[in-house]
Amino acid sequence: MRFPAPLVHLIRELSRLPGIGPKSAQRLAFHLFQRSEADVEGLAQALLDAKRGLDRCPRCFHVKTRADALCAVCGDAQRDATLVCVVEQPADVLAIERSGAFQGRYHVLHGVLSPMHGVGPDQLTIEALWSRIDADDGEGIAEVVLATSTTVEGEATALYLARALHERGVRTSRIAYGLPVGGDLEYADEVTLGQAIAHRRPF
Amino acid sequence: MRFPAPLVHLIRELSRLPGIGPKSAQRLAFHLFQRSEADVEGLAQALLDAKRGLDRCPRCFHVKTRADALCAVCGDAQRDATLVCVVEQPADVLAIERSGAFQGRYHVLHGVLSPMHGVGPDQLTIEALWSRIDADDGEGIAEVVLATSTTVEGEATALYLARALHERGVRTSRIAYGLPVGGDLEYADEVTLGQAIAHRRPF
Repeated sequence: MRFPAPLVHLIRELSRLPGIGPKSAQRLAFHLFQRSEADVEGLAQALLDAKRGLDRCPRCFHVKTRADALCAVCGDAQRDATLVCVVEQPADVLAIERSGAFQGRYHVLHGVLSPMHGVGPDQLTIEALWSRIDADDGEGIAEVVLATSTTVEGEATALYLARALHERGVRTSRIAYGLPVGGDLEYADEVTLGQAIAHRRPF
Repeated sequence: MRFPAPLVHLIRELSRLPGIGPKSAQRLAFHLFQRSEADVEGLAQALLDAKRGLDRCPRCFHVKTRADALCAVCGDAQRDATLVCVVEQPADVLAIERSGAFQGRYHVLHGVLSPMHGVGPDQLTIEALWSRIDADDGEGIAEVVLATSTTVEGEATALYLARALHERGVRTSRIAYGLPVGGDLEYADEVTLGQAIAHRRPF
């Protein structure tokens, strides 16, 4: 006896999500089978609305609504345009914002350098970072804070960026090792993250 | 700085799923933001197809496609109609089918008796089980195998059913304690589950 095709298909789609194995996918699929049709339609619509209604900020590549020209940070005139914090992913922006320790802008790489997985500088938003720094009518960036994760790949990415930034004569700092080494930035608590930003050191 | 509304909404919808906390929901939402629009549409469509294309079997309450009159087990003339295995949920049917140790039909309760959570006999499909047994033109059910989980609530449900089945003079058995006590039936391995069915004991 096999499951009906629509159920098999849903289980396969769900198991493609990160952190969801075949067993969890099956459990989720059955849970959804028990929920009302309106509930499931609500989830499906939320997925489509999020995908269709969101876009990347053309300046910093953080997430923004499609209707806005820039993300909430870049669109805020109160923020310090001369200070840019480089992070791996949009979730890291929210984590740093929660700490309240940073008043500059961001630059979201959308990944880390990882030769083993075929991710080089061209697969990230690094070229756009140089454009932000080099443009004559640019933001006047004076300091770049490197806030990639303290994993091996995050460190390698920070080192790569630091070298290129030194060549450009831009002051560069690395968030302090208040973070547990080897941990994902996204899961750090707000106080630790705030300390790490306050005590950033020259790189 | 807050996330754009469609993202906040998606994170809230995802955290309503079982086993997915706020952090996992955020991680999933960002993962979906990175995926292609076609991919996300595929997931949304799979959700809708599964919900709209599936239904409960009118006889045993297992999952079936809406187009079929009965589920795959009830619709199979080779199965032994006189032997019925009572399980908590559709996933348990698949687990037992994988063991290959059972050739009868099923009856899916869609839950367990749980007075603390307001689940009494009327919230489950128990009345329909009595109808299957009592109907003059019924299946001629001679034995009921109680395969609810070996949790406290699963045991209490089995005990409740066993008493009512004794009153009706139906032979009743309980799957053997080859299962680790306190575990969910869905996660048992196939050999253990096969042994448990082969060694079911009078109840």
